[in-house]
Amino acid sequence: MIFRQLFDQETWTYTYLIADEATREAALIDPVDEQVERDLSVVKELGLTLKLVLETHVHADHVTGAGRLREQTGARVGASPSGAPCVDRQVKDGEVLALGGLRIQVIATPGHTDDSLSYLVDRKLFTGDALLIRACGRTDFQNGDAGQLYDSITGRLFTLPDETEVYPGHDYAGLTMSTIGEEKQHNPRLAGKSREWFIEFMNNRKLAPPKKLDIAVPANRACGKPIAQAQS
Amino acid sequence: MIFRQLFDQETWTYTYLIADEATREAALIDPVDEQVERDLSVVKELGLTLKLVLETHVHADHVTGAGRLREQTGARVGASPSGAPCVDRQVKDGEVLALGGLRIQVIATPGHTDDSLSYLVDRKLFTGDALLIRACGRTDFQNGDAGQLYDSITGRLFTLPDETEVYPGHDYAGLTMSTIGEEKQHNPRLAGKSREWFIEFMNNRKLAPPKKLDIAVPANRACGKPIAQAQS
Repeated sequence: MIFRQLFDQETWTYTYLIADEATREAALIDPVDEQVERDLSVVKELGLTLKLVLETHVHADHVTGAGRLREQTGARVGASPSGAPCVDRQVKDGEVLALGGLRIQVIATPGHTDDSLSYLVDRKLFTGDALLIRACGRTDFQNGDAGQLYDSITGRLFTLPDETEVYPGHDYAGLTMSTIGEEKQHNPRLAGKSREWFIEFMNNRKLAPPKKLDIAVPANRACGKPIAQAQS
Repeated sequence: MIFRQLFDQETWTYTYLIADEATREAALIDPVDEQVERDLSVVKELGLTLKLVLETHVHADHVTGAGRLREQTGARVGASPSGAPCVDRQVKDGEVLALGGLRIQVIATPGHTDDSLSYLVDRKLFTGDALLIRACGRTDFQNGDAGQLYDSITGRLFTLPDETEVYPGHDYAGLTMSTIGEEKQHNPRLAGKSREWFIEFMNNRKLAPPKKLDIAVPANRACGKPIAQAQS
């Protein structure tokens, strides 16, 4: 499996490129609009064909590159049925997507938003903003629900093998990956914490709304900026 | 082998943590002063013992965390004989350092600076500021030499197997890794470029000096800030 972690400095967003080494079929998870040219360049230089763009959820902190990538490559865009209506394929909990010889397992992990999905490919788990490194996504907008997030993380993700590698949608400390074992042991919001404690903690954070909320959510429900708008 | 790529957002610096999975002995390559607490936290949470801090060169763009890490853990600091005089161990081209069962091969790659080293561990190559992703380090200060850098990259690094993974000291496009095969094929400064072309290109870049040059170089020759100064 070909694998690349890509970073958008302005929004601290991680995008992931995965591809089947034999068939060269590729998927991008959570691409960022401003990085579409970079991402296409990496895809091309590695001799890959972009088949799939997957969103972990409708993002509030950056605009997706999904729509422009679809226009330029013919890739199909996939996300949750409760997410953006612009997608080509609604993917649901338990589904397994084929990418050449790779198998992408869809795991519903709502709580940060109601449409949040995680994707598992081999030992690599792409958690979006559900489980972050030593943290988790906030739950105070976009139908977020702290109890639901606790259940998603502890009931779905923490039941995966300890050596499962965790690749989040963001990290604000310069950490690039973790493992399920590490998060079970060291995540300060979850290790040894009860559901009640977690709900109270999350509901009392009093955070300012994400800077791009008003722009990003409507744009992302339309799979990002159309080319004309992006070029203006 | 345990492996983590760590990122310092302010200076766009990558620090690398490597460790023997069995003995839990660890090394940090190019730690950043401002990230010492984060790095120690990762080392501790992974159940590792920091034995070694390796510098690829005397940096001009950030202050190293080597000295503080040494003070707090007893780790030994290693770098080139032509680099910082504060080190515990001068490591030279061709030497192989043991870290538990891991073997760290030292490859002299001067040109960005005269003390630049790369480190090879299994298939992972840590290139500092010699070979960057689709780029290379500048050669216009600290005894940099474009011809020497060309020779280091093409003569030493590009002779490694294509599948060797390249982990640079910085990347300014949000790329986190590359391979020798990719850089041989796609690095615009090196793929199909002659030594003469490279020298002319590098000598005509007319870049401003690095922002931290005057602070970083003297500090790094002393292995970074002493604890008292860092706390002030």
